[in-house]
Amino acid sequence: MKLTFLGTSAGRPTKARNVTSIALSLPEPQHCFWLFDTGEGTQHRLLGSKLKLNKLERIFITHLHGDHLYGLPGLLTSRSYFEGAVPLQIYGPPGLQAFIDCVFHQSGVHLGYELSITEIVSGQIVTDDFFTVEAAELEHRMQCFGYRVTEHSQPGKLNLPLLKTLGVPSGPMYGKLKQGEDVTLPSGEMIRSSDVVGPPVAGRIITILGDTRPCENAITLSKDADLIVHEGTFAGGMEEKAAAYGHSTVLQAAETAAKANVKQLVMTHFSSRFDDAAIELLVQDAKEIFANVSAAHDYLEINVDRVTSETD
Amino acid sequence: MKLTFLGTSAGRPTKARNVTSIALSLPEPQHCFWLFDTGEGTQHRLLGSKLKLNKLERIFITHLHGDHLYGLPGLLTSRSYFEGAVPLQIYGPPGLQAFIDCVFHQSGVHLGYELSITEIVSGQIVTDDFFTVEAAELEHRMQCFGYRVTEHSQPGKLNLPLLKTLGVPSGPMYGKLKQGEDVTLPSGEMIRSSDVVGPPVAGRIITILGDTRPCENAITLSKDADLIVHEGTFAGGMEEKAAAYGHSTVLQAAETAAKANVKQLVMTHFSSRFDDAAIELLVQDAKEIFANVSAAHDYLEINVDRVTSETD
Repeated sequence: MKLTFLGTSAGRPTKARNVTSIALSLPEPQHCFWLFDTGEGTQHRLLGSKLKLNKLERIFITHLHGDHLYGLPGLLTSRSYFEGAVPLQIYGPPGLQAFIDCVFHQSGVHLGYELSITEIVSGQIVTDDFFTVEAAELEHRMQCFGYRVTEHSQPGKLNLPLLKTLGVPSGPMYGKLKQGEDVTLPSGEMIRSSDVVGPPVAGRIITILGDTRPCENAITLSKDADLIVHEGTFAGGMEEKAAAYGHSTVLQAAETAAKANVKQLVMTHFSSRFDDAAIELLVQDAKEIFANVSAAHDYLEINVDRVTSETD
Repeated sequence: MKLTFLGTSAGRPTKARNVTSIALSLPEPQHCFWLFDTGEGTQHRLLGSKLKLNKLERIFITHLHGDHLYGLPGLLTSRSYFEGAVPLQIYGPPGLQAFIDCVFHQSGVHLGYELSITEIVSGQIVTDDFFTVEAAELEHRMQCFGYRVTEHSQPGKLNLPLLKTLGVPSGPMYGKLKQGEDVTLPSGEMIRSSDVVGPPVAGRIITILGDTRPCENAITLSKDADLIVHEGTFAGGMEEKAAAYGHSTVLQAAETAAKANVKQLVMTHFSSRFDDAAIELLVQDAKEIFANVSAAHDYLEINVDRVTSETD
């Protein structure tokens, strides 16, 4: 799984940073990607990446402020130019359907693919063969969600030496055992899956939070995640201003990461008052609270690997 | 007066060309600029130019298709970040107000400056101290306008040798005569303005047309203009496809320029199927019909000077 940051500026674009959008590329066999937020110019940023709109499968909108939303109509329209675009599902707060309906009505849009929009409430909003996605409300100036993506766990490793000792022939029986089925040998002996398969390999957890003040739901959504993306709109010391605008400082982002026991924190959504050098200093400040922290920049790619790799 | 092309691609952006927007910088004493269309990413293109959003005075929208419109909400919102932004006036087809109202309502926008929106009909839509702007409907898949900007004519040149012979003292009397007032010398002799001032110096005319099939209104709006901007979505030979989509070929653009007796034609809004080399060939084809034609590219600047400069 790979995150690609397509926009890392708060409020308005700068020359170097676009407004918010994050792509999550899914591993095989999906070969597709999801987007979290679509600030204006997201489709332009995609043109400079390897991500193709016809492989976009889901979009999650954290909230309806323009710097997270205004790229959605153009991106959806441009997607019609791609042959073989799969159906697209969008999730976001109430108001999203009315926004799209009105914009498309006034601008005469007819898409060349199937689009469905789900206005969400907190809870589990996606379950497919590979992932579940949970949403919970954060604390911002308008209703805003964070998203926790959990990969399904995979079967544990086969104990090959034990299988050999037990005389289980390699082949279909190995597959059944790995999937949790007990099998019977030609000798009549039953082999229990639980005796020859190790504990399940946990799936990866990636949490992408929208704009927020520090809040309990940010911690809950982030709990034990492999990686969380948290806004760091303001510098440490600007907590009062951050609270007034419904945002966090980088220190507050680090505190949430520490409380949630995450493995990695990536901060984004920096106020345009900070240039790259200033943001590097913000990261140094945050490290005092949570060591494995970094700042996103546009086109930054971060791979999130499974903690335990399978060898069988 | 100077045109700056901020987007020259039709339908969707490419790596090199954004969707449609054109800036018209006004001469002193205005020191401001107008925009014609605001495709998605117009505010991003402005970041790479010398044009500052607080100096934007008017926006003219040709029609409500997304590639001419979707940059408007973000541009208006980002303009609130600029101190001292002057009031902003937007003109466009019916539906523009509903579009802005809905988008701003759903995304919780409160602008920091005065905005007014005028849904136009054909005719004269602006008259200020320096310019008039006329609009007329073109022929597209939805209601679409073209805009003709006419600078007011300026007083003619003073005939300095004659004034000297007549004994008119230089100073305030020169100003009155130039403005069309007759004056009386201390001797009692009346000097008629019409006798000592040459013919008025015509103002510049710039016509910016929206998406259109060839039509009479395109010619009327362009008549005798110093410069027209005309779409050239398709290549010569693709007239049937152009008509089906409500567009023009580059040959049709050149024909309109020739029929309207304009001085200069700049083509824009090229289909993304054409790269820069292909567009250069399109220009060569169009030259067979109208010699003074060129193709716009993003950030192209074109100065439009007065034909007759004043020397007094």
